[in-house]
Amino acid sequence: MYKLLKKEGNARRGEYSTPHGTVQTPVFMNVGTQAAIKGGLSAEDLGRVGCQVELSNTYHLHVRPGDTLIRDMGGLHAFMRWDGPILTDSGGFQIFSLASLRKIKEEGVYFNSHVDGRHIFMGPEESMRIQANLGSGIALAFDACVGIPAERSYVKDSCDRTARWLERCRAALHEYTAREDAVNPGQVLWGINQGAVFHDLRIEHMKKIRDLDLPGYAIGGLAVGESTWEMYDTIEALEPYMPVDRPRYLMGVGTPCNILECVRRGVDFFDCVMPARNGRHGHLYTWEGVINIKNEKYARDEGPIDPLCQCPVCRRYSRSYLRHLFKCEEILALRFSVMHNLFFYNSLMEKIRNALDAGEYEEFCRAYAEKLDRRI
Amino acid sequence: MYKLLKKEGNARRGEYSTPHGTVQTPVFMNVGTQAAIKGGLSAEDLGRVGCQVELSNTYHLHVRPGDTLIRDMGGLHAFMRWDGPILTDSGGFQIFSLASLRKIKEEGVYFNSHVDGRHIFMGPEESMRIQANLGSGIALAFDACVGIPAERSYVKDSCDRTARWLERCRAALHEYTAREDAVNPGQVLWGINQGAVFHDLRIEHMKKIRDLDLPGYAIGGLAVGESTWEMYDTIEALEPYMPVDRPRYLMGVGTPCNILECVRRGVDFFDCVMPARNGRHGHLYTWEGVINIKNEKYARDEGPIDPLCQCPVCRRYSRSYLRHLFKCEEILALRFSVMHNLFFYNSLMEKIRNALDAGEYEEFCRAYAEKLDRRI
Repeated sequence: MYKLLKKEGNARRGEYSTPHGTVQTPVFMNVGTQAAIKGGLSAEDLGRVGCQVELSNTYHLHVRPGDTLIRDMGGLHAFMRWDGPILTDSGGFQIFSLASLRKIKEEGVYFNSHVDGRHIFMGPEESMRIQANLGSGIALAFDACVGIPAERSYVKDSCDRTARWLERCRAALHEYTAREDAVNPGQVLWGINQGAVFHDLRIEHMKKIRDLDLPGYAIGGLAVGESTWEMYDTIEALEPYMPVDRPRYLMGVGTPCNILECVRRGVDFFDCVMPARNGRHGHLYTWEGVINIKNEKYARDEGPIDPLCQCPVCRRYSRSYLRHLFKCEEILALRFSVMHNLFFYNSLMEKIRNALDAGEYEEFCRAYAEKLDRRI
Repeated sequence: MYKLLKKEGNARRGEYSTPHGTVQTPVFMNVGTQAAIKGGLSAEDLGRVGCQVELSNTYHLHVRPGDTLIRDMGGLHAFMRWDGPILTDSGGFQIFSLASLRKIKEEGVYFNSHVDGRHIFMGPEESMRIQANLGSGIALAFDACVGIPAERSYVKDSCDRTARWLERCRAALHEYTAREDAVNPGQVLWGINQGAVFHDLRIEHMKKIRDLDLPGYAIGGLAVGESTWEMYDTIEALEPYMPVDRPRYLMGVGTPCNILECVRRGVDFFDCVMPARNGRHGHLYTWEGVINIKNEKYARDEGPIDPLCQCPVCRRYSRSYLRHLFKCEEILALRFSVMHNLFFYNSLMEKIRNALDAGEYEEFCRAYAEKLDRRI
């Protein structure tokens, strides 16, 4: 389902087809954890900001409103009224980062909900059942996440467990999608590579899960404490062992500069809460760097956030107005900022694809890599 | 500028022309106190919910971001990018309801800002200067507000003061709009009638301010503590003394039923924070009554908020999804609810106008007056 269209160094221009449409890669997925984009954006708005793939979360939707409810409402596409591709994260990372009293066993993880403390058990089969109920186009494997730094022996054990769980995930999802009442019979499973920053563990694990010949592979367990350069080095070491004809998804990354550097290292899919979260704090991306719209200097600035931006906010509203909305705590401030930042990220990906198409990706990186992350 | 098109009993179908467009009356004005609609609605969204007149507030905008800033940005229309009619309240009511350490003198009111406590003085001239800076199409007179119940003598004094202030308002606004650099040279002043629920004071005051022959008259100081029937009775007593060829604006009112009853009593303009505020609490208007979308019974309800509603939310999203958004505290819940409720209010006014056009207003009232306010 992945088609490599062109390469420049290790950077890949491709497309990935799903039952809900074809995705042009490299792509940034727009995060709607709880089946909604933070900042008051609707499914219609996702279209307006140029979103190709929406990403929701297994753990959050299992807790609220419950995946069986979403199944009964026709699945996530019908529930949130987004008819483009959806990827669901498996819940593994959220159990690791949000849940309390976590006990990891071979069968899965026992933990307490971060919302109401109720006891929940989730293993590979449960994660697949939930994702089958949600009916996303792309389900992610349930993995054993580790933070960084971590002991090598603990990372090795987690990798082995993740590999064993992956086989169970594959079997379970196969069973669920084959059912007559499957929400999305075309749903597929992507594996997740783990191994922290131990290159040999990463490679060993990748070789193991590659043999399952899944339609896509994610790189998990990065951007969780290591330095940016450790992250880049790990991807560089791993890349030659990832199948060429499958998309690669770097989970939870990152800044515009991170994305540029990781596209150079062969990554196709990205997601991150950063553009929405930064937006809600008034930190807005421009092609010259990141501005803080709350600054006094924008009080009487009649220009748009970015004169080069074609987003619905920049086409109509001024920095002055947006700053005012932040200062008097109007929700519209959040909506405008998230809208702009997501549009910016989606535009960045489009420019990356155009540069790859034109064989000018290295020039593009040189022009922007140092600029986009800096505060101006 | 007001044209009475048709009457049914005391109910009036009319239109009112402003430099930014003609308003079909009876009309509900959509409240954007701080130059933004609570709940994350933009000026574009105002168009989508069928808003005819936007209402902003002198006091709030003077405090933040400052009316001179808005003037320098080209006025309120340019600042918030709404090109339809705007009415600005004078600040009199907000000083009365929000500000602390209030001292009312003949020259005006000394008080402390509710935001940062800073000392502010506002009298008729200041209110007019601020509204001239904002450049609204309709400016409201700066009045001395009183709560209910209040001593008759205190109400009488306030009425007299409001009448004296009105003359100062007229002179001041005349001066400001005549200036070469006026933001909106076509800006007009509406007077405000006061008198609490003392019918004779209301009438006496109305006679006095009527003589100034202003292009519109508001009824202030109601819905501030009296019973609904006292409010209706007061309007009924006052109505014969309001000029027929001028629009009447009942400030801060009210529920759908209040609006139906007050249209019957000759009111043309309304405004209220209620639809937006109720929306943010999950109380949504339907043609059968008010629902609380947070109720468990809507958890799996695939229908829209109201099957008869054509708003952008009802056309696309389910009660089930909206309830989920509230339960997990997504901002999108607020946006959707406010959008629906404002659309509902604007539709209600449209139906009222249609009923008046068809000479069927009494039937319309009988069909809806008891239904729309009840909780179902």
